[in-house]
Amino acid sequence: MTDKIFRINMTDLTTGIEDVPAAWAGHGGRGLTSTVVAAEVEPTCHPLGPKNKLVFAPGLLSGTLAANSGRISVGAKSPLTGTIKEANAGGSGAQFLARCGCKALIIEGQPRNDRWYSLTVTPEGVVINEENEMIGKGNYEVVETVTARLPGKPGIITIGPAGEMRMAAANISVKDPDGGLRSCGRGGLGAVMGSKKIKFIAIDPGDGKVDIADQAKFRDANRAFAKALVDHPVSKALGQYGTNVLVNIINEAGALPTRNFTSGQFDGHDRISGETMHDTIVARGGKPKHNCHPGCVIQCSQIYNDADGKKLTSGFEYESIWAMGADCCIDNLDHIAEADRIMDDIGIDSIETPVAFAVAMEAGVLPFGDGPGVCRILREDVAKGTALGRIIGGGAGAVGRAFGVTRVPTVKNQAIPAYDPRAIKGIGITYATSTQGADHTMGYTIATNILGVGGKIDPLTKEGQVELSRNLQIATAAIDSTGMCLFIAFAALDDQTCLPALIDLINARFGTSLVGDDVVNLGKSILKTERAFNIAAGFTSVDDRLPEFFYTEPLPPHNVVFDFSGEEIDTFWNF
Amino acid sequence: MTDKIFRINMTDLTTGIEDVPAAWAGHGGRGLTSTVVAAEVEPTCHPLGPKNKLVFAPGLLSGTLAANSGRISVGAKSPLTGTIKEANAGGSGAQFLARCGCKALIIEGQPRNDRWYSLTVTPEGVVINEENEMIGKGNYEVVETVTARLPGKPGIITIGPAGEMRMAAANISVKDPDGGLRSCGRGGLGAVMGSKKIKFIAIDPGDGKVDIADQAKFRDANRAFAKALVDHPVSKALGQYGTNVLVNIINEAGALPTRNFTSGQFDGHDRISGETMHDTIVARGGKPKHNCHPGCVIQCSQIYNDADGKKLTSGFEYESIWAMGADCCIDNLDHIAEADRIMDDIGIDSIETPVAFAVAMEAGVLPFGDGPGVCRILREDVAKGTALGRIIGGGAGAVGRAFGVTRVPTVKNQAIPAYDPRAIKGIGITYATSTQGADHTMGYTIATNILGVGGKIDPLTKEGQVELSRNLQIATAAIDSTGMCLFIAFAALDDQTCLPALIDLINARFGTSLVGDDVVNLGKSILKTERAFNIAAGFTSVDDRLPEFFYTEPLPPHNVVFDFSGEEIDTFWNF
Repeated sequence: MTDKIFRINMTDLTTGIEDVPAAWAGHGGRGLTSTVVAAEVEPTCHPLGPKNKLVFAPGLLSGTLAANSGRISVGAKSPLTGTIKEANAGGSGAQFLARCGCKALIIEGQPRNDRWYSLTVTPEGVVINEENEMIGKGNYEVVETVTARLPGKPGIITIGPAGEMRMAAANISVKDPDGGLRSCGRGGLGAVMGSKKIKFIAIDPGDGKVDIADQAKFRDANRAFAKALVDHPVSKALGQYGTNVLVNIINEAGALPTRNFTSGQFDGHDRISGETMHDTIVARGGKPKHNCHPGCVIQCSQIYNDADGKKLTSGFEYESIWAMGADCCIDNLDHIAEADRIMDDIGIDSIETPVAFAVAMEAGVLPFGDGPGVCRILREDVAKGTALGRIIGGGAGAVGRAFGVTRVPTVKNQAIPAYDPRAIKGIGITYATSTQGADHTMGYTIATNILGVGGKIDPLTKEGQVELSRNLQIATAAIDSTGMCLFIAFAALDDQTCLPALIDLINARFGTSLVGDDVVNLGKSILKTERAFNIAAGFTSVDDRLPEFFYTEPLPPHNVVFDFSGEEIDTFWNF
Repeated sequence: MTDKIFRINMTDLTTGIEDVPAAWAGHGGRGLTSTVVAAEVEPTCHPLGPKNKLVFAPGLLSGTLAANSGRISVGAKSPLTGTIKEANAGGSGAQFLARCGCKALIIEGQPRNDRWYSLTVTPEGVVINEENEMIGKGNYEVVETVTARLPGKPGIITIGPAGEMRMAAANISVKDPDGGLRSCGRGGLGAVMGSKKIKFIAIDPGDGKVDIADQAKFRDANRAFAKALVDHPVSKALGQYGTNVLVNIINEAGALPTRNFTSGQFDGHDRISGETMHDTIVARGGKPKHNCHPGCVIQCSQIYNDADGKKLTSGFEYESIWAMGADCCIDNLDHIAEADRIMDDIGIDSIETPVAFAVAMEAGVLPFGDGPGVCRILREDVAKGTALGRIIGGGAGAVGRAFGVTRVPTVKNQAIPAYDPRAIKGIGITYATSTQGADHTMGYTIATNILGVGGKIDPLTKEGQVELSRNLQIATAAIDSTGMCLFIAFAALDDQTCLPALIDLINARFGTSLVGDDVVNLGKSILKTERAFNIAAGFTSVDDRLPEFFYTEPLPPHNVVFDFSGEEIDTFWNF
């Protein structure tokens, strides 16, 4: 079937199917969401008003059998950062949407009344239904109830109470094949979905399939691609310990932000590490290895059970564990897992929210290390939208402003994740220059600064960091357009067969003849499109800076500050 | 005595007296605070961090017998707007500071510990004392206790609990001769004072006097100047009804923002009007006419008693009454007066805070019209710093972000005051282009749009509004440098003897020979200095815009929108 644009207008509750404009044809995933947002959203509009649009797009390879191609992108103007925003997640959303022949789902307008709705997407198009039963419910209940309510096993994209309440840290969840939740986490896109009064989107592709121009070539390329992925040592580590393998590594590097970014090492690192987590999972009969979408060959997810052997959470990531762990000084993995489950259920970013808690701890709202306190506030305040819940749900910047705290680790109002930019300087360049606020996934210099992937650049020197971040941000923008999980990047950087195989996959899918330079140019062009949106929204190079304390407070144990000048940072954009 | 710079470093708790740099000599009031902030504060610094500086400056004529010359300016980078900021107030601060020979008090740094301090300023310099007794106390108690504690009748500048808690809407209060409070209201400068851990500043000039170069010329000029002021009809109206004379006038114009800016007229306008207020004051034995500083010949202040004849509040201004009244739909003047007293005591802006309440009412936090509810939240939440109090104390923008409200009347995150820019378009240009966020006092086009002062320009047409705002903003910047109350502007616009007399006063004070063009050039140069700071802080023309809803929601009864394009607004800066 030919891919189409599915458009939903929530002001007049109409839907339609449109041909794909020629300019959008070569785009997928983030490339497409950013292209649509840049083309159709006024950069100065209110992110929660009727002029913003919420765009879902599977990647170029989603819906095929290509390994690790199941990421779904969602884009809009962010209520957290005010920038253009894309967040992506696994789950079955991308594959099902692609199999509906939907290249992008564009949701515009806003109901004039207070009613709530759901969308059902099939190859025939989109139906809007009024929704009452699920309003106010957590994501787990939505997934369970909607799965039972609808025939087949629909893909489900949903927001929790945080999104309904339009909290700036609200995320969008995507059901995985086992009923777990995968999050388009960052930038508050759940609040945009909430502002459009859409509680969930059910996707039923029926027998819909994605066309492949050259099946044989596709199969061969996929075999080579998957082999490159599984052979890479980082893939193996991810499969064994999950992303949480990083706790001990980053702690050893002195770059594990601890106690609201006042130290680079956490005394309790062993108790929250990937190794400890692995052993705990095994001892409790959980799954140390689990895939978030069909076709993943890395399987960095896991199922973490509580002490009674009951499933507590999955997709339990390093950045979330770091944030609730080291940054909040909580050294009890069960408390962290419980908080993770609640955050997934409320539908709120599990990086932004714990970083917000750490700032609140510095303000004296609760003590550092108080895991039960965090879970209580999540349940009784954030989920219920009390004033304190609203402040926490507004993210780290909101907490800092409310309590007059000056040590607030954000860039463009988005919380800095799990790698201190003083001790890993390359990632600082990514945080500063990313078109979307502080985000490690935009240009993951940890690969080269710490893991020795794609070469090795000393994390403590300034030399080479801008170029490293630039190259990675360009490559990431391209990868984010394919529907591929970012974890293909390790193999892509080290294994010369990987990237050609990926390009072969795209060419086999569409009958095109792209070469490596096309991919690089695609990445550059996406970054420039995103940056142009931000400039039109009022951003300047002054926004491409880290908060003051990174320049003035040395981070133990290396006792280093972030020492790039503004001019040095700005050379990032010389391409 | 020769004027000096008094400098206080709160990091190492040292003070010093410095000569006035030549470049600062011709500046006073806002001209001086903005010049110092632009010269010494990094535009990108955190407003509540050690790099911000808090600058107090009397005007060029403060401390003399010149009529209406008792305004004190305070400047810093604003925690509310992120821009450069100046706020000014009456009271005895300016006159006493000038009589100490203090041209500017520059407070820099920040204590490294948690102790609180007070400053005592005399002609000999500044002494820093640790302060315990007053911490956590309201402004009224501070004024009473410190007056009793110190010999003479010191001038007092103080912050309330809001400033101590570094709320973005916290103001700085200045004692008036009767122990009443005058507020440097806007932009959260009280939070900056709180961040420097200074609870209050006592000023004792002793026998200190301001030098006058030509006493006879000064006396003559002052006579002509005062006559121009008292003769103007607006001065008379202000003396009779206070600034609150405007409720009925602006309501009649259909520009009285009501129910969180959804209408231009308020059913309850008669019950909160200046006329009603005047009759109530007289009936209860209050004072309908009262001066906020010695030498004021307009006397727009008043003392408003409660039903038992006990003083409730003074300096009860139109903008505060509008905000708590029409904007929150509270039509009971006693409730508004009680809220005004509490806000003065807490030390929080009585424009920003009620506008924040109106947004909270739209969010459903409390019902529109709930005066007792407002007073309860002010006492139990804002004063005590609960989470709800922190949200309200963060201003209208913070409330909008916390509750996901899109109708939030702010520019550069500062609440739009009492004149709807859809129905009075000139003031919309001022709100948009002001270097300090939405602020009617920056270029009060109401004079010409509504009051027929300085000519008449139809408030509903676009023609002439940009030029009007530009001329008034330039003139205002100059007037704000003299220590003069802005209400001299009505006479200055209409009476040809007024402005020459003012210039004569300055020349007589300093032995200079300024002419009219010098004043205009001073005003232009101050605006450009302020704008350059903002640009370096990351602001662009995109920030010189009104919120989206002013362009899309027609305001009854005229059913008009704000329809200036960005390009049209930007012509403001063509000078």
